[in-house]
Amino acid sequence: MSTATAEHSSRTATLIDALRDIVGQAYILTDEQDMAPRLTDWRGRYHGKSLCIVRPANAAQAAQLVACCAHAGVALTPQGGNTGLCGGATPMNGEVLITLERLNQIQTLDTDNYTLTAGAGCTLQALQTAAAQAQRLFPLSLASEGSATLGGALATNAGGVHVLRYGNARNLCLGLEVILPDGQIWNGLRALRKDNAGYALKHLFIGAEGTLGLITAATVQLFPQPRHHALAWVGVNTIAAALRLLERLRQRAAERVNAFELIDAQALGLVLRHCAGTRTPIDAQTPWHVLIELADTADPIQSLLENTVEAALEAGEVNDAVFAGNLAQSQSLWSLRERISEAQQREGTSIKHDISLPTSAIPHFIESCTAALEAHFPGLRILCFGHLGDGNLHLNLSHPQPAEQERLMAQSEQARRIVHDLVLDNHGSIAAEHGIGQLKRDELRRTQNPVERALMTTLKKSLDPQGLMNPGKVL
Amino acid sequence: MSTATAEHSSRTATLIDALRDIVGQAYILTDEQDMAPRLTDWRGRYHGKSLCIVRPANAAQAAQLVACCAHAGVALTPQGGNTGLCGGATPMNGEVLITLERLNQIQTLDTDNYTLTAGAGCTLQALQTAAAQAQRLFPLSLASEGSATLGGALATNAGGVHVLRYGNARNLCLGLEVILPDGQIWNGLRALRKDNAGYALKHLFIGAEGTLGLITAATVQLFPQPRHHALAWVGVNTIAAALRLLERLRQRAAERVNAFELIDAQALGLVLRHCAGTRTPIDAQTPWHVLIELADTADPIQSLLENTVEAALEAGEVNDAVFAGNLAQSQSLWSLRERISEAQQREGTSIKHDISLPTSAIPHFIESCTAALEAHFPGLRILCFGHLGDGNLHLNLSHPQPAEQERLMAQSEQARRIVHDLVLDNHGSIAAEHGIGQLKRDELRRTQNPVERALMTTLKKSLDPQGLMNPGKVL
Repeated sequence: MSTATAEHSSRTATLIDALRDIVGQAYILTDEQDMAPRLTDWRGRYHGKSLCIVRPANAAQAAQLVACCAHAGVALTPQGGNTGLCGGATPMNGEVLITLERLNQIQTLDTDNYTLTAGAGCTLQALQTAAAQAQRLFPLSLASEGSATLGGALATNAGGVHVLRYGNARNLCLGLEVILPDGQIWNGLRALRKDNAGYALKHLFIGAEGTLGLITAATVQLFPQPRHHALAWVGVNTIAAALRLLERLRQRAAERVNAFELIDAQALGLVLRHCAGTRTPIDAQTPWHVLIELADTADPIQSLLENTVEAALEAGEVNDAVFAGNLAQSQSLWSLRERISEAQQREGTSIKHDISLPTSAIPHFIESCTAALEAHFPGLRILCFGHLGDGNLHLNLSHPQPAEQERLMAQSEQARRIVHDLVLDNHGSIAAEHGIGQLKRDELRRTQNPVERALMTTLKKSLDPQGLMNPGKVL
Repeated sequence: MSTATAEHSSRTATLIDALRDIVGQAYILTDEQDMAPRLTDWRGRYHGKSLCIVRPANAAQAAQLVACCAHAGVALTPQGGNTGLCGGATPMNGEVLITLERLNQIQTLDTDNYTLTAGAGCTLQALQTAAAQAQRLFPLSLASEGSATLGGALATNAGGVHVLRYGNARNLCLGLEVILPDGQIWNGLRALRKDNAGYALKHLFIGAEGTLGLITAATVQLFPQPRHHALAWVGVNTIAAALRLLERLRQRAAERVNAFELIDAQALGLVLRHCAGTRTPIDAQTPWHVLIELADTADPIQSLLENTVEAALEAGEVNDAVFAGNLAQSQSLWSLRERISEAQQREGTSIKHDISLPTSAIPHFIESCTAALEAHFPGLRILCFGHLGDGNLHLNLSHPQPAEQERLMAQSEQARRIVHDLVLDNHGSIAAEHGIGQLKRDELRRTQNPVERALMTTLKKSLDPQGLMNPGKVL
């Protein structure tokens, strides 16, 4: 062992001892096998390396851990439910992994103020349940809500199916508690709808994926619980027709449009093929499907939905429609939407995109993007689905022929660029609701305007001068 | 003239020449009398000093102006409609005043995407009108909306009467164009509901009152236009009863609660005394009044409001209520609320507060605050009104006896501290919707937690290292 290596090992051992002293022996992992499940993301795409995994019991311990790492000049990565889709929570190069799962207490639920303060390690589902028990709604809802945590959702500014009505994680967040890169705790846990006492610091940390600080708790808004839901599955010929239907609904129901999801025939076909117990909701052959949910507090909203969809049918804007008559039917319609990811996984690998556009640009974008991709990869399969109401689409590419699929995967970088360049031409975003992480870091660098890039770099350098917070992600 | 002074004068003349070259002779003022109207805030509380006032025609000119000032090391202050209440737009010490009034073009209105992009100099009213012409709603609504500009509203994160439903200026803003302190233009004019491509830079500039950059344009969200409105004026005995009524309304109408305004009997009394053509809306002697507006796109909402208020009447939670039967009645009820500021002005000077609290804390806060103020200033008059639905109150203090009024004004600092300390004890904010400006700068410094203070200072230093952007405000 060289002197330098020996010195490094000794410093490393000292750091691990210090971290162990903070959390206790039971809450530190150093064995590679023990650490393995936390070092791979759930899609199995990223495999990381970590010096050790520590599980603080509270914000004070988390702050000590961060201070310790800062003092030693060792980088760290925070991790919530490890459900991220861009590798943002996987350490890349031996970072200390701090998992927030023990910070899972609901600290206060203020029914009258419609707010809830909770530790970063609470799952979204736990927050939904706590809110429901107080006759309130916590609307952040994702497929992974049983594992995804509040901290992770805020660090990536997660979206989901109800953004159209309630906004994304950022909009729901009133206050934050953050461990800064030097180990200080910033307690910004305010439960206020209006607060302009100084700069809007919380927004720096929301969506920054742990690169500026470590979120340990948050205060979020709650809402009145809708008591009446109405669900429809509708077939349309074009995205433009789907958007016309959305406009009809908005003009009638305004905020009561709870979800407006687009599913193309390919995506539905995969679900029907791969997922047991599913069947097609409508008989019409239709290239595009839309799942619509309305919800209201006061009165049944079924007839408003039916009348609006029927008016669209009569105007020839809709091919066919079915309405959920009971909860079981609602669940089976929702499951067709929610099982798209699972169906894709069973079908095989694909190149995934998480993009957003002004809704007015989507019909043209899909047309030109399909043409451009087809020109480069003839016969490729494009799955297109997502939260059309927010302008957020998931555009996933694969090829039904094995040899061509191999070529497509080998040229995934090129495919990605075709999509992203057209997204930017249409004033869209290459990262809508999944974050940047490792997956899109280079694409962000390639596509971001230089002034914006420089601003981000300035912020990173001033808040995290040692560059120890989740390195290799976002920037 | 000393050599140093001569040198300074010569450098100043050179800067003025350079600024004149950018905007043209017609758009620069250097004469003190010409500048005077722009150097006093509309409340007449702050009187500033400026080297010159320049009115750029567009963002490119604004950028050149800022670059010029940066090069000369001369500070600048941006100004919109000059309707701010905290002196944030009044230059303090010879700063170049850049007014954005000529940046008053609506650049794009995307009806399908429910977005509008406009220059910072557009008045809020102009945006409301443009949106209405496209059958859309731009919901930011303030008493000063005929003069207040988009840029100023974003720089102060303005609120108003519809925050309860639509959020404040920050929530409405999807994208920004900002001139950075070195004169570079950051074009972040995105029209997207979901965008996580990098840090949330826009939030740094919103609410920063020009201390980090100069907002030249913004993209804002629009909404479906409500077609049915219902208005009620209600008398209640306590704030707690008002909050119970709010809860009844939320449980029935959810987002359709458009406004929920609290007015105490003192404030209403002043309006009735000072404003011609006003009369009391309800006969009952009641210490607190509430103005409620519901609005819906699809169906009349009058009966939902009536039924809910009547249920509260039957439960003994409401003393009396009147419902607007037509537009004229609606306008006359709203004008009682909107004329409070005018009535106060006519009554004389008062110490004004713009605070927010968790709604659940308001009854206790008002009780303890009234007691504490009364103990220090026996017989003082407290006017309390505001946007109860957002937890935002305006608490304005004066004394009916001239000698005591003089004493109160002389001890205004102490009065302010009594209020603000109790606000903070109750987890509230000393700055809800008017900003910090000059008025609350020292109070912010006194009350802010040191970690937060240090973070703000770090941001200011890294983005504006010369400290030239609107010095003396906020920080």
